[in-house]
Amino acid sequence: MNKPLIITISREYGSGGHAIGQKLAEQLGIPFYDREIITMAAQESGEDEVAFEQLDKGMSEYAYAFSLLDANNQNDRLFVIQAQMIRKLAERGSCVIVGRCADYVLRDCASTYNIFIGSSSIKKMERVHKKGLFRRESMSPDAKLKEIIEMDKRRSVYYNHYTGRTWGDARNYDLCIDSSRVGAGACAVILAYIEQSERML
Amino acid sequence: MNKPLIITISREYGSGGHAIGQKLAEQLGIPFYDREIITMAAQESGEDEVAFEQLDKGMSEYAYAFSLLDANNQNDRLFVIQAQMIRKLAERGSCVIVGRCADYVLRDCASTYNIFIGSSSIKKMERVHKKGLFRRESMSPDAKLKEIIEMDKRRSVYYNHYTGRTWGDARNYDLCIDSSRVGAGACAVILAYIEQSERML
Repeated sequence: MNKPLIITISREYGSGGHAIGQKLAEQLGIPFYDREIITMAAQESGEDEVAFEQLDKGMSEYAYAFSLLDANNQNDRLFVIQAQMIRKLAERGSCVIVGRCADYVLRDCASTYNIFIGSSSIKKMERVHKKGLFRRESMSPDAKLKEIIEMDKRRSVYYNHYTGRTWGDARNYDLCIDSSRVGAGACAVILAYIEQSERML
Repeated sequence: MNKPLIITISREYGSGGHAIGQKLAEQLGIPFYDREIITMAAQESGEDEVAFEQLDKGMSEYAYAFSLLDANNQNDRLFVIQAQMIRKLAERGSCVIVGRCADYVLRDCASTYNIFIGSSSIKKMERVHKKGLFRRESMSPDAKLKEIIEMDKRRSVYYNHYTGRTWGDARNYDLCIDSSRVGAGACAVILAYIEQSERML
């Protein structure tokens, strides 16, 4: 492959999309970006890194609460600077980018592969539990399920607000994979898609 | 693989989903069912085959027009008898089933793989044009695009009406593939998903 290979990954909370992206980048020997985009964006734009990272952590929560009330808040600034950083990274060469509406930000970049990773609620709960990421481990299964649904709702509201598209609608992505049945094996499926696509060029 | 392998394929109009399903069935050496389910359902239920096939041809149009007005019409009867046939076929053994809400009909069958095939509007228009399926070949590109959108809208309304789910929402399927970039190469992607999944069992 001579042209750069840019892969964006959108993912449900607890679907393992971050780990799948990481493994994919390793297998392809190309850089992997997720939250580090924030630090890089802060550094390149001269913003306060710590403040930016804190904003990012609360980002989806803020966007969820205020998206319809305040269209010109600090989240918008974060989104714009982050989008500039994503475009710079894509120009620099092949990479895997997780989250941050990168599929939308790079929509005019024809060689980008846009992937969505979902999973069953049960598998997502297992994964989040295993990683100790629930607010309280003593929560009831119902409360844990509610937390998963809430996290996905935030991602959905954030994505829909900034892109005008529908998060998880198959028509926005080249490939959508339910990771429940394949786990990190999703990498092999993504690679098969890319291989078939490169053959058609 | 010892247990039967059931693959359902939902597809956008002009995405090549039918051909992909057919090729997949050939590669796996298992039966392929699309419209023939109607004939089989008519034969097994003692209904008039020709009347049933005509009903099927107009099915999505009727469902589109009447879904909200008349919940107990002849389409409902067709849907029920068709669903019974789909369940019988799945019990008989491995197969590929295209359309007919088979993913929903077989929702309790854990070993089913549910695939959605989409494509870009341009590629869908090219494909429908190539197959001579536009109402009039002299139509303007705008009118052709409108026809594609209309066909997909009918499929969507039909699916949503009978399943209570959202057609093309990635969360209903194991794998959603945009065939624009891979064509019949989608088969290799589906096989990669099944292989990875079987490894996890």
